[in-house]
Parts: sequence; structure tokens; C-alpha cells
Amino acid sequence: MQSQVVGVTVLLLLILGATQSKHRAPRRYTPDWESLDARPLPGWYDDAKFGVFVHWGVYSVPAWGSEWFWWHWKGEGRAPYELFMRNNYPPGFTYADFGPQFTATFFQPDDWADLFRAAGARYVVLTTKHHEGFTNWPSPVSWNWNSQDLGPHRDLVGELGTALRKRNIRYGLYHSLLEWFHPLYLLDKKNGLKTQYFVSSKTMPELYDLVNRYKPDLIWSDGEWECPDTYWNSTDFLAWLYNDSPVKDQVVVNDRWGQNCSCHHGDFYNCQDKYMPGSLPDHKWEMCTSIDKSSWGYRRNMAMASIASEQEIISELVRTVSLGGNYLLNIGPTKDGVIVPIFQERLLAVGKWLSINGEAIYASKPWRVQSDNNGTSVWYTSKGPDVYAILLQWPENGVLNLASPKTTSTTEVTMLGLEGSLKWSKEPLQGLLISLPQLPPSAFPIPFAWTLKLTGVE
Amino acid sequence: MQSQVVGVTVLLLLILGATQSKHRAPRRYTPDWESLDARPLPGWYDDAKFGVFVHWGVYSVPAWGSEWFWWHWKGEGRAPYELFMRNNYPPGFTYADFGPQFTATFFQPDDWADLFRAAGARYVVLTTKHHEGFTNWPSPVSWNWNSQDLGPHRDLVGELGTALRKRNIRYGLYHSLLEWFHPLYLLDKKNGLKTQYFVSSKTMPELYDLVNRYKPDLIWSDGEWECPDTYWNSTDFLAWLYNDSPVKDQVVVNDRWGQNCSCHHGDFYNCQDKYMPGSLPDHKWEMCTSIDKSSWGYRRNMAMASIASEQEIISELVRTVSLGGNYLLNIGPTKDGVIVPIFQERLLAVGKWLSINGEAIYASKPWRVQSDNNGTSVWYTSKGPDVYAILLQWPENGVLNLASPKTTSTTEVTMLGLEGSLKWSKEPLQGLLISLPQLPPSAFPIPFAWTLKLTGVE
Amino acid sequence: MQSQVVGVTVLLLLILGATQSKHRAPRRYTPDWESLDARPLPGWYDDAKFGVFVHWGVYSVPAWGSEWFWWHWKGEGRAPYELFMRNNYPPGFTYADFGPQFTATFFQPDDWADLFRAAGARYVVLTTKHHEGFTNWPSPVSWNWNSQDLGPHRDLVGELGTALRKRNIRYGLYHSLLEWFHPLYLLDKKNGLKTQYFVSSKTMPELYDLVNRYKPDLIWSDGEWECPDTYWNSTDFLAWLYNDSPVKDQVVVNDRWGQNCSCHHGDFYNCQDKYMPGSLPDHKWEMCTSIDKSSWGYRRNMAMASIASEQEIISELVRTVSLGGNYLLNIGPTKDGVIVPIFQERLLAVGKWLSINGEAIYASKPWRVQSDNNGTSVWYTSKGPDVYAILLQWPENGVLNLASPKTTSTTEVTMLGLEGSLKWSKEPLQGLLISLPQLPPSAFPIPFAWTLKLTGVE
Amino acid sequence: MQSQVVGVTVLLLLILGATQSKHRAPRRYTPDWESLDARPLPGWYDDAKFGVFVHWGVYSVPAWGSEWFWWHWKGEGRAPYELFMRNNYPPGFTYADFGPQFTATFFQPDDWADLFRAAGARYVVLTTKHHEGFTNWPSPVSWNWNSQDLGPHRDLVGELGTALRKRNIRYGLYHSLLEWFHPLYLLDKKNGLKTQYFVSSKTMPELYDLVNRYKPDLIWSDGEWECPDTYWNSTDFLAWLYNDSPVKDQVVVNDRWGQNCSCHHGDFYNCQDKYMPGSLPDHKWEMCTSIDKSSWGYRRNMAMASIASEQEIISELVRTVSLGGNYLLNIGPTKDGVIVPIFQERLLAVGKWLSINGEAIYASKPWRVQSDNNGTSVWYTSKGPDVYAILLQWPENGVLNLASPKTTSTTEVTMLGLEGSLKWSKEPLQGLLISLPQLPPSAFPIPFAWTLKLTGVE
Repeated sequence: MQSQVVGVTVLLLLILGATQSKHRAPRRYTPDWESLDARPLPGWYDDAKFGVFVHWGVYSVPAWGSEWFWWHWKGEGRAPYELFMRNNYPPGFTYADFGPQFTATFFQPDDWADLFRAAGARYVVLTTKHHEGFTNWPSPVSWNWNSQDLGPHRDLVGELGTALRKRNIRYGLYHSLLEWFHPLYLLDKKNGLKTQYFVSSKTMPELYDLVNRYKPDLIWSDGEWECPDTYWNSTDFLAWLYNDSPVKDQVVVNDRWGQNCSCHHGDFYNCQDKYMPGSLPDHKWEMCTSIDKSSWGYRRNMAMASIASEQEIISELVRTVSLGGNYLLNIGPTKDGVIVPIFQERLLAVGKWLSINGEAIYASKPWRVQSDNNGTSVWYTSKGPDVYAILLQWPENGVLNLASPKTTSTTEVTMLGLEGSLKWSKEPLQGLLISLPQLPPSAFPIPFAWTLKLTGVE
Repeated sequence: MQSQVVGVTVLLLLILGATQSKHRAPRRYTPDWESLDARPLPGWYDDAKFGVFVHWGVYSVPAWGSEWFWWHWKGEGRAPYELFMRNNYPPGFTYADFGPQFTATFFQPDDWADLFRAAGARYVVLTTKHHEGFTNWPSPVSWNWNSQDLGPHRDLVGELGTALRKRNIRYGLYHSLLEWFHPLYLLDKKNGLKTQYFVSSKTMPELYDLVNRYKPDLIWSDGEWECPDTYWNSTDFLAWLYNDSPVKDQVVVNDRWGQNCSCHHGDFYNCQDKYMPGSLPDHKWEMCTSIDKSSWGYRRNMAMASIASEQEIISELVRTVSLGGNYLLNIGPTKDGVIVPIFQERLLAVGKWLSINGEAIYASKPWRVQSDNNGTSVWYTSKGPDVYAILLQWPENGVLNLASPKTTSTTEVTMLGLEGSLKWSKEPLQGLLISLPQLPPSAFPIPFAWTLKLTGVE
Repeated sequence: MQSQVVGVTVLLLLILGATQSKHRAPRRYTPDWESLDARPLPGWYDDAKFGVFVHWGVYSVPAWGSEWFWWHWKGEGRAPYELFMRNNYPPGFTYADFGPQFTATFFQPDDWADLFRAAGARYVVLTTKHHEGFTNWPSPVSWNWNSQDLGPHRDLVGELGTALRKRNIRYGLYHSLLEWFHPLYLLDKKNGLKTQYFVSSKTMPELYDLVNRYKPDLIWSDGEWECPDTYWNSTDFLAWLYNDSPVKDQVVVNDRWGQNCSCHHGDFYNCQDKYMPGSLPDHKWEMCTSIDKSSWGYRRNMAMASIASEQEIISELVRTVSLGGNYLLNIGPTKDGVIVPIFQERLLAVGKWLSINGEAIYASKPWRVQSDNNGTSVWYTSKGPDVYAILLQWPENGVLNLASPKTTSTTEVTMLGLEGSLKWSKEPLQGLLISLPQLPPSAFPIPFAWTLKLTGVE
Repeated sequence: MQSQVVGVTVLLLLILGATQSKHRAPRRYTPDWESLDARPLPGWYDDAKFGVFVHWGVYSVPAWGSEWFWWHWKGEGRAPYELFMRNNYPPGFTYADFGPQFTATFFQPDDWADLFRAAGARYVVLTTKHHEGFTNWPSPVSWNWNSQDLGPHRDLVGELGTALRKRNIRYGLYHSLLEWFHPLYLLDKKNGLKTQYFVSSKTMPELYDLVNRYKPDLIWSDGEWECPDTYWNSTDFLAWLYNDSPVKDQVVVNDRWGQNCSCHHGDFYNCQDKYMPGSLPDHKWEMCTSIDKSSWGYRRNMAMASIASEQEIISELVRTVSLGGNYLLNIGPTKDGVIVPIFQERLLAVGKWLSINGEAIYASKPWRVQSDNNGTSVWYTSKGPDVYAILLQWPENGVLNLASPKTTSTTEVTMLGLEGSLKWSKEPLQGLLISLPQLPPSAFPIPFAWTLKLTGVE
């Protein structure tokens, strides 16, 4: 069985347009984690630090509850979801019936890409297919349940990709391995995962198709948790991706490829959603989170109480980068294809902050210490010999004590965005005291999270 | 490749619930036409004579043009179809967007079945899936493009089947092999039919599923014409159907299983749509036609000019049965699940006519002569020694000349529906002259197509 | 108050385009029944005999129950209507929400008019506004609740009128005085009909507007029953209509102009719906009835059991005309603007019958006897000296006994549609015996209701 | 004519529930501007200073362009509007067809009212009816074109009123005199305004109904510009409002009651939209403006570029109050009844600012000087002997020069929100120099527009 399924998969792959490399790379990966995990991380990813995540699909039509709408309603039968449907739709209305209302009327991929660039994002990850199974591109194995046949009548994945490439923003594709209600997936589960009808006729053809069509820089896998990687055929796919795919040199993938993979395998780790480590991890990782704290997909009745503030977002970005992570910040567009103003505002705030402080973020490395515990919240990054201390709280008395840097004769302190250097003095036991400048309230576009650059410290 | 695909098919079959016969029939068919064609026709089919055909699907939503709406619009780009869409729907509206409007609001399968019984139908054939690919049952390989996930939210095939069984009406399933716009079918065609992705992942799983789920008495295959039977894997399916399927003893199939099959292979022949032979064929056949002469699916703007009259329908039924055929008369229900009154009226007229004349139709056999050419339209059937002459035109002078029957001393002539026997006299050269009775205009419920029963003739 | 309201009404009338006759007719009607009832009936109406009634409105959208859908649902709260709404629409869906779905997509007024002509109709009455208040023309006092602002976006009243005029078919306008749920009508009722806000701002402006715009030959008033004519201001309107309106010479009106008017006032009487008198009335009357016996408006789930047969319809027409009435036969088009085939078929059957027997119907007068009671159903009409006996049942023995005509030396009997005269003999006591011809079943297009023309009888 | 119309109006008024005061106030206003303009302004209005304006109606369904959608599309035929409709709706779709989609699904009046209170608003003005004519309450003269019969199926005006009253927020009702496309208004205009059909049957009944039903504190009239007040019967209405209406003691009205009224008559003046005077006017006025600078109604594709910043809004509020005006800030809810987060955020920012600085705003009076021209933007208000100087720009050197106040021996300077008083020194020629404190960036919730309170100055 297994070999046949793989056979079909490979055939599909060949037909669907895989371009095999003529010049084989000297080293080839084998479809096992030991080999795959040994691959070096392509450099662009660690340099990028900040990306934007986009959750968009048929759940953007009810736009209520969250992007797990279908599951909460039909998988779990949660009372509020049943009530919502009963109150607003005719009896018997199904999730598929939402499809034609996903119109993308105002979707302008170039406007989106301009916004993401202004936000300082170096990569963007789009949901090509969430657990609902609806594909945002014309997948040949998702007939009449994709954005070309139904609703938008457009290749959303392709259009956004084109707009991003024009602006040199890297493109990542989110893809859910499972589909909650796909009959073949349900059949495989009923068979105790001894069959792989779903994998061979849906998941794998689509993953190969995505890579061959859109040549992504990143694959953000999800929906892996119910089955082992042997069911998903993940290692076969990854070996092909690393050895022979058109993106083998630059592509990076996350860690959701089967039960027990998360936090253990992959180019970078997400671990759980919104996961933030307590100390510096020894593997590249990414923190993904959402401006709307209660949902990844758009909610029509979203209120300010659930919207992360600029301070929260920038603090989290700083902490993540200091701890060696990348920060992937999510927005959910409307069914019309609009990124609503509150999301625009938050993204632009990050961009304004990065326009001053980006030097301490992009292409930075964690320093030997991540954070000082001196009563003010300070996080460190570094670049070569330079150390950056990012201050999340302004001390009442205007004097900052940094405990960790060891000063030298050449030590100098400046604040990013200001001319001139700051006065400082050595502390007897360790560290230094810095006199912060007296700034008028409008000194910075974002009056929060000030970066001190220290040169000549150890 | 071929073997792998078959492998997958068979696996699907096993999983999807095929019940293998424990007691093998002594004879087994091999998957080739020579063997398959040697199978004797199950008796019920020839006895049935009259069936009702039902075309119902997403084309019942636009309900304009014909059930080929999608093809004429998108496959051929016919101007009237493009205009119709432009005038009545928003730009970009797709065929799939029609799906949620296929509601079946008023569908009462028991009412349908009562009507079909009152029409005298001995079998009913429903489109389980037309060339559009939408399945009227919850096919696991047609996710979100079937009547359970979308629109009616019901198993239409199953519900009608249950209602028919309760009334001892045989159940036939129409199934289109091709799907105009299925991406995998288009891919196979692009590959010169050297691949069978579509067959292995859609067509065959669905055919097996239909048989195992609904145990049909008849499979009415269609949509075969673009590919040879080797592409469709038809003979494999039929061998399974005849040898091992749960309906192996009673099932009958038509002749549309691949290019050049029509009129050559199958339990009975349809040849072309609405085909009527000129003389008695040597193989069981069926004439299929539609009350709406211009469409098989419902058309909202249907006018009387295209509706077959009672006389036309009964004439065609008589002629068909006389020539050894079965007569399958089509109606297209509305998207609401209603069989509109004009179709009810026509079907009930057939039923009223059969209530008098059914003796000459059901379980009859062709006679040695099919039709007399004496200026009046007379068609013969027989049952054992009895001969039936069905008169489609009443002679002006009230005297009927039958040229073909040879009278004997025991010859007697009666008219079905009337008491007593008719006066007749022998014609000098051949045949006999019959004095028809003077009937008041309301003598019969349907004042048309009178049956003379002749006993003691040769 | 009263005078003020009239003042407003008259002003509206002047503004909305009333064309006052320059040359006053010598006689003028005063706004009281004595004067109005003295008006002679314009001749065209009695000659016309057969008309078609058309019920079309927003009720054609749910197309379920009847055209009283809104009242049964919201006025009475009938359980099946509430269930129907609950099962098929979102909670809170109102009747007004149906408006945009009344599309008239296929409405071709010329096709309708051709059909009505082929049916032999000499006049057509269209619902310009039923009790729901939705106007089928752009009424300036029914803003956004009319067929131009909403749904069809067409002037249905105007378009049909134009098509009928081209074919010399007289045009009647149905108009409901009351509107079940109009807030001003409800207010007037709450005020014990001491106010006339509704009459002055809605009913009367619309009636005047209809007359001035469309110049109808007939006004078919309805919805009068809850209020006296003094509330409706009916006699003022009728005096204007008869004295000064652009249709003063040819217009006829029915009898529904206030409580106790029906069967007492008006150019012709309808009395109740489907009313049929037992003997010859002494005032011109009209029988209105519907092919769908259960509804005047279209019902999507209409079944044959409720459809009047050709025989029923023609019998009723014959009986009505014999009793001095006109016959107004109703059909309800679909929301798409289609007259469905079963209605086409019935109308065409009447037309075919009239093509043979119309001589005994159009412009006929009642004879001195209406019906013979000799065991067969015979109804008489006359034209000058000629008498027509219409036979609804063919005698078993082919001999018809007419008891009422007194034969003379010149008496001759023919059957309409046949050459030659029939044999007859005088009965000893009274009347005559007629030998009916032996006809082949297809002698007439409609094998029912044969007309004997008797000349030279008394 | 005129008197009749008034007669009808008054009758409507009596019927619709006017509660006449039993105890006549000694003074009565006559229906002319001289008398009406002499009425003293009820005190609550000048004290309130800050209100929220809400534009909500059927234009919230297309939610594109602006609340003038219908006019730009059908009144002017602007190309982008025609294109928008052509691209997104079926041909022939009308504005009225939008009605059923105005659902108000998530409308929670208590949530709105909580938000408005948190924003510091002392009054709220809702569009009860904009130029489109759709009424947000069940107006008996706007049948099937109001929020109860169609769409929301709720009394929006009533529900919001109830929620506001519970929080002691004053309630204002916006009402448009004209309706772009009302047929009777068009008729009156065609008649050179010599008729008042529209006024007597629509405008005036609705205004009286609004007052009697909802007892508003404020009537915000609009849509007056095409006709003189004599056409609108404005002075009659206002005399009733001031003399006899249930809100005669507290109600205030703006100045849009007919051509040439604006900026000349009314309790307060709006003059033009967004009007801001250059110096202190001698009549109470109000500045109305919108957070979305490009529209008063919701726009689905609104972008940050058109959203007023917190600084812009607060600056405008300060300047308005300093110049003696009230500030009415507009938001447009979605068709679902949601005030989107960006609007929530802006309103809450005003509320946070007022929580510190409200002392200088609410119930304040203009000072003898409005603004200092010393290179920093400072605006004054006063309350009794205290003077408030609101600083819109923080001086680079931390020292503020106020030119206008004359210091005395008891002069003291504090900053609202801070403990303690500030150091200051007298300037030789005039005014004083104040040393501003060194504040950490997070000293205030809104780091903008700081208020200095000066006591003991002249």
C-alpha cells in the first residue's frame, strides 16, 4: 500500500510540473529526521526577524468566533456557534454555503505588500489552506472548494506572491496537513491510519503543487497533531524539498510535520502557538502571535479589549529577537480583502519603530546576556562587537542602570535616533549607569522602547 | 502505473464496504467484452417496459438552456449563455456559486414515488451525477460538491431509493463517467489519456460506492464518448459488478462504457439519445426521451411548444415496445424538488392509458410483425399465443383492416377496456376487417391508442 | 377633516396629470349610488365574455400557500406558515425582505399577450396592487415598495398594457383598496375610521394615477370589505371616472367599493369570489375563478390535484355565459415572469374550443331558457334569432333530446365545426330529438362541449 | 392649500400621541424667526462640549464611497460608482435592493453607550433618517423602507435612546428634511415648490413622530438647502417644539431649517460641515467632523491615510472649545452594527485625555483671549476665575511663554494630572514663563495636549 501511494504521489508530482535539478548538489538528504535535521538554516531567515502572518479563508465570511468556526460549530457543537447560525442563517445552512460570499472585492495585493513593507516585515506567511480545506489557489485536487472556482474567482496565493516579490519580501506558505471534515481523512482515521487515501490524493499533491507553482521561501506547516509523520509522509516531502525542489537552496520550514515533531524537527521551531521560551534556546525558533488576541481570522465584532497595543507588540518583538527568535505577527483580512485600519495602524507602528530601532533587530544576534533584572525591563541584542540594550520602561529618575555590560576604555553609549552620545559612569560592582536625555514627548514617532547602542563593551 | 491505479481502486473498494459473496457463483466473468456480453439479461428488465428518467442537479438552479448549461457557457462560450449570466448575475459569478441555491425545499420522495407508480413506471433512473460532477449523494471523493455538504443537505439518491423500494419500483442510477471541468480529468486528457488520475480517484471510487451503498437494479452509464473503455476501466468494473457485487444477480447496465461501446456492448443498448430503430433489433434496447423536447433538466422558461403531447408520448411508447424496446421517459424536477404539473399530467396520462392497455405492454414480446402498413398506424405486441394490435389512428369509416394476422376458426377480437367482442370478417387475400364500436367521446380516460386483443390468430 | 382630505386628493389628482375633458358630456354623474348605478354598461364588456385574470406580486416569491401568504403568516400567525419561514429563511426575515427576489427575469409581455389572444381572451385583468400594497407600477406614493424601485425594476402594469393594446385586447386593472399592514390604514382603523389618512395619501392618489397613466378599460376593485364606501371615497372617484376621466366612455368597474356594495353597485357584479348564480340574474355579472383551485398567486409546489381540468373550465365558461355572465379565468405567473406550461395548456385548450364554438359565446345573449333538465347537461345562448345549445355530456345512445326549443317549418340544426345539418324530429309534447353524428375520436381539437346551432326555432 | 396641509399635519400629530402640556408656560413663541431666535439656550448644551455623531443607514451596506452613495451613483451618475455596481452586483440592482442586507447582527446598544461614555461624550446624535429616506425607526409614513420592516427588524432609534438614558447621556436626533429620490419631493420640486405633498405627508409627520416618541434633547436638522423654510414649514414645527412639545424645556436645535437659515437661526449654529471659525463667534456653535475624513458613513475599504489621528482630534476639540463651540465627532458603524476598533480607539483616546483634562473642557467658558501666538500652540478656556492654557506643542527647551495672562501676587500654576505647582516667572513686558516638568514618556495616558491651570491671574 505505502509504496503504491508514494508511487501515485510521485507521478502526480512529475505531471504537475516538478523541475528536477540537472546539476545535483553533492550532498543529498535522506527521508529521515537525522539527515534532514542536519541541514544548515538558510541565512535569510535568521536575518529577517520580523514577518507578517495572514489568515484568510472561508472563515472570513462568518467572521465570528475564530478561524476554527467550522470545528467549534460542527465538530464540537458548541452552543454559541449553533445559536449564531440559528439566529442568522436559514436552517440547514452549511459551511460550504458560505463559499460564494468570500468575495475579496477590494483585494489589492500591491496595497497589502506596500503595507507589509511599511511595517518593516521581511517575510509574509499566507494561509494557502487552513483546516477547513478551502484552498486559496486553484488546486486541481480541491475542485470547487478553492478560491478560483468559488467566491473570489482569483488565485490569491499567486497574486500576493507576485506583489511581495516586487518588493523583495520573502514569501511563506502556511499549509494545514489535516482537514477537519475531509471524507478521505475521516476514512483514514476510521481505518486507524492504516490507509493514506487522504495523504496520497490531497495533502501531498497539494504540497508539491504549492512548491512547484509558487516557489515559496518558507513552508509553515500546521494541522499535524493527530497523526505521526509516517502517516503524512513528511520526510519524503522534505527530502524532495531539500534535494530537488526549485527552492531547495533558500527554503525554510517550521516544525509541524507529525506528532512529536513540534519543537524537535524542522529548520525552525514554533513549538506551540504564541510560544515564548524563558531563556535562549539552542535552535532557531519563531514566535507567532496575532494582533487580535482572540482570533487569527477576522472577526466582525472584534473589540478594542482584544487588540494588542503597540507597546505589547513592540515589547514582544524585542523580547523575541533578544531570545534569538523571529516574530511573526498575524492579521486576518476581511472577506472583502481589506486589512482593517486597526491592523494597519499596529503594523505601521512597528514599521515606524523599526525605522529608528531596526539596526538592533534585523540581522542581529543574541548577546551573551538576554535581559537585565534591575527593575527596568531591558533586553539585549548584538551585531559584531556592538551591543544593543532596548529599554521597555523609562526609569523615573532618568538614570538607567545596566548590570551586564563590562565597560572598557573605549566604551561609548548612544541612543538610536538621537545625535550625540550619552553620559555614563561605571558602577562599582558591575555594569554602568547611563543618564538618559530629557526628551520632549514627541521626540520619537513611537514614544516607546528606546535602544541604547553600546560600543566598546564586553 | 496502470497496476498501481487499479491497486488504489481496489483498496478503496475494499474499504468503502464491498461485501464479497461468500458463495461464489460457478460461472465468473472476465473483464473483457466477449465474456461480459455473454451474460443473460435479468428478466425483470424486459418485462418492465416503461421507466421514468429524472435529471436533477445544479443545472436545475439556473434552469435555463439545458442541463448542459455549464458546458455551453464556459466550455463553448455560447453568446446567449454569456448574456444570460451577464444580465442576471454579478460579474465573476461561477457555476459553483449556484450550489447553495439548489435547495430541494419541497422534495418529498414519497410523493415522487407515488407519482411514478401512478404513471405505471416499473423502474426509475435518477442522475446521481451528471457531467457537472456534482453528486446527489455524499460521495467521499466529491467533498463540498455534493448534495449533502451543499444546497439540499440531503442524500437525494438514498431518499428516492427508499421511497421506490417501498413501492416495488426498480431503481436505476445514472452516472456520468466524464466531468467536463474536473481538473484531474483535464489533466488526464492533456496527458493523452496516458494517466488515469481522474479514473482512480474519482470515477471508479464513486461507481463502486454507488453500487455498495444503494444496490441499484440498473446502472445507466453516460459521458463515455471522449475516451476508450481501457481508460475508464469499464470492464474491470463490470466484471466485479457481475461477479461479486451485491447486485450481481439482478443488475442491468446500458451500453455507454467507452468509445465504440455504444450499440455494441452492455445488457441493453441506448445507442444515441432518443434513438429509435427502424426495425426489430436483435438485442435488448431502450429508447430514452424527455417530455420537454428541448432539455432533460428543468427549464424555468419552458413553453408548451416544446412539451410532448400525450399522443406523442403514448405513440412512442407503443412503437418502442412493439420493436422490443423499453421506454424511459424523462422529467426534470425544479431546484425546489418539485415535478411541475405539466410533467405530472403527462406521466399520469401514461398511467391512465396503461391502466387499460398495460396488458399489451408489460411483459409482452414483439410479435412476428411489428407494424401494419395499411394507411392506419397499427403496432403489434404479443403475449404467449395472444396478439395485440394497438391502433394509433381511428379509421374514418370505423372499419379497421389488419393485414398481418392470419385468422383461424377460433379467432376472436376484443378491445381492451370494453366488454364483449368485436365483429370481424376475413379479408380475401390476407388479414381481417374489424368493425370498431361507436364510442361516446368519453369512453376511455385517454381517448387515444386503442388496443385490439386477438386470440386464435397466427 | 373630511373636506381637507378630499382637498388633498383632488390636488394630487390635478398634479398627477388628470386630463380634464374640454367638452363636457351633457349628462354628469353625481357621487352617489343612485346616479352612478344609472349609467349604461359600455357594450364591449358584455360582448367580451371571456377574460384572463393575472395575480402577480411579491407573494410570487415565497410562492407557497397562496397570495394571502403575508396575512396567514403575520396577520393570523398560522402554524404552517410560521414553520415554512422558520425552515427556509433566517430568523427575523420579513415579507419586505422578499422584495428583491421578485425578478421578472423572463417576463416577455408580448409572449403573455400572444398566449392570451390564443386563449380567446377579450380582456385581461392584472393585479396592479394586491392587499400586500406592493405596486406593479412606479407609484409615487409607494416609494421603494413597487416594481420599479425594487425587484423587477420595470413598470409591469405599463409593459403588459402596451402588449395587450397591440392585439386589441381590453385591459383591466385590479386594485386593492385596503393594504393589510399599511401603518396609516392601521391608524385609520384604530381611529374607528374617523380619519382617512390612508385613503388620502395612498389609495386615492394611486387609483387616480392608474387611470391617468394606463387608461384602463376596466377597474377591478377589491379589498373593500372592512370599511364603508364613505371611508374609501368611492363614489367621488367613480363620479370622476364616469364624468371626467380619460376613460369615461369605455371604462367598466366591478362592485367592490365598500361594505354592502358587492352584488349591489357597480357596472357588473362579482359578488363573492367564484360566485355562480343559480338562475339568470338581472344585472351584468362576472364569474372569476382560478385554474389553480387553491390559490390565485403562483405556488411552487402546486400539484395536479388542485388544477382544474379542461372539462371543468369549459363547462364553467359555458354555464356562466348561458347565465349572462362573463368568465374571468385566473393564472399566477412565477416570480420570474413565466406562465407555467400547465396554465398555458389550459388557456390554449379554451382557445381551441372557442375557435370552433366561439360563435355561441362572444356577443351572445342569454336565451329565454338557460338549461335543459333532460338528464344531459345542455346550456343555451342566443344571437338574434339563432339559438345555441351547448352539450356538456354526449348521450350514450347518440340521440339528444332538447325540451325547450319550439320547432317550426324552417327549423334547422347544425353542429359548430361540422359540415351539413343534423337529422332531427319533433317530440310529441315539446322540444325535439336530434341524431348526433358518429365522430371519430379526433374530430375536434377539444373533444368536449359540442355546440348545436338551431335556426328557425322559437 | 397651505392651511390644509398644516391641518393634516396637526391631525397626525394629535393622533400620533402628542402629549399637550396642561400647564402652559407664560411665554409662547410665534412661528417666525424673530420670536424663535429669542429663546434662551438650555444650559446643558453649552456645558456638554463633546458629543458623538453616528451615521448609520442603508449606505452602510455598500459601505463604499460615502453615505452619499445613492446620489453619486444615481443622482450624478459618477463613473466610479457605476463601475462599482457593475463589478459587484447583477444588472438592474437598485439601492432599495440593499435594504435586506442591513442586518445590524451585532448591534448592542449598551455596548455603544458604554463606549460613548468612556469617550467622555455628553451627548450622542444618531441619523434617524439620512437623505436616502430610510428611517431607523418604524415610521408609519415610511412603510417597508424603515429598519423595522426591513433589514434589522429593530427600532434602532429607540434602542439606542434607551441605552443612552441609562447612562445620563443626552440624545440628539439627526433628521434630513429632503430625500433625494422621494417621488413626492421630486413632484414638489417639479411644481416649483408650490405644492408641499412631501412636507405634509412625509417630513412633518416624521419630525413630530420623532419628538413624541423619543423625546430628544437635540434635533440636528439637515438636508434643508434646496428649499426655503416656508416650504419646509420649519417655523411652525419649531414653535410647537418650543411651546408645546414634551421636550420644550430642554431641547436644542441646530441651524439647518431652510435656505439662508444656516449660520443665522437656531439654538446653535453648525454653518457648514466641519466649519471652524477664525475667532470667537457671538452665538453658540458646534463643530461637526468625522474620524474617517472621507466619509461620515462606514466604508469597508477605509485606509489609515483617511483616519484622523488622536492628535488631530484632540487639537480640534481644544480649539473648538476655546472658541466657544461644541465638538461633535462622527463614527459610521458597519451594517452589522459594529463600531470598528479604529473608531473605538480614537474615541477612547479622547476619553482618556478628558479623564485628565476634562476640567478645562466641560462647562468651561471662553476666556478673554483664545490663543497665544508665541510660536507654540496654546488655547485658553476658563471657569470662574480660573484660566486653563492647553498646550498642543511641548517647547523644545521645556520653558513655556504665555503672553496673555497677567500675573498677580496669588498667581499659581499647576498641570492637570500632576501633583504640585510649577515654577514660573514674570516676563518683563507681559505674560509669564513657566518651567515645564521633566516627565517620563509614560506620565500621561495620552502624551499630548497638556493643560496648565492658572489661578490668580487676570
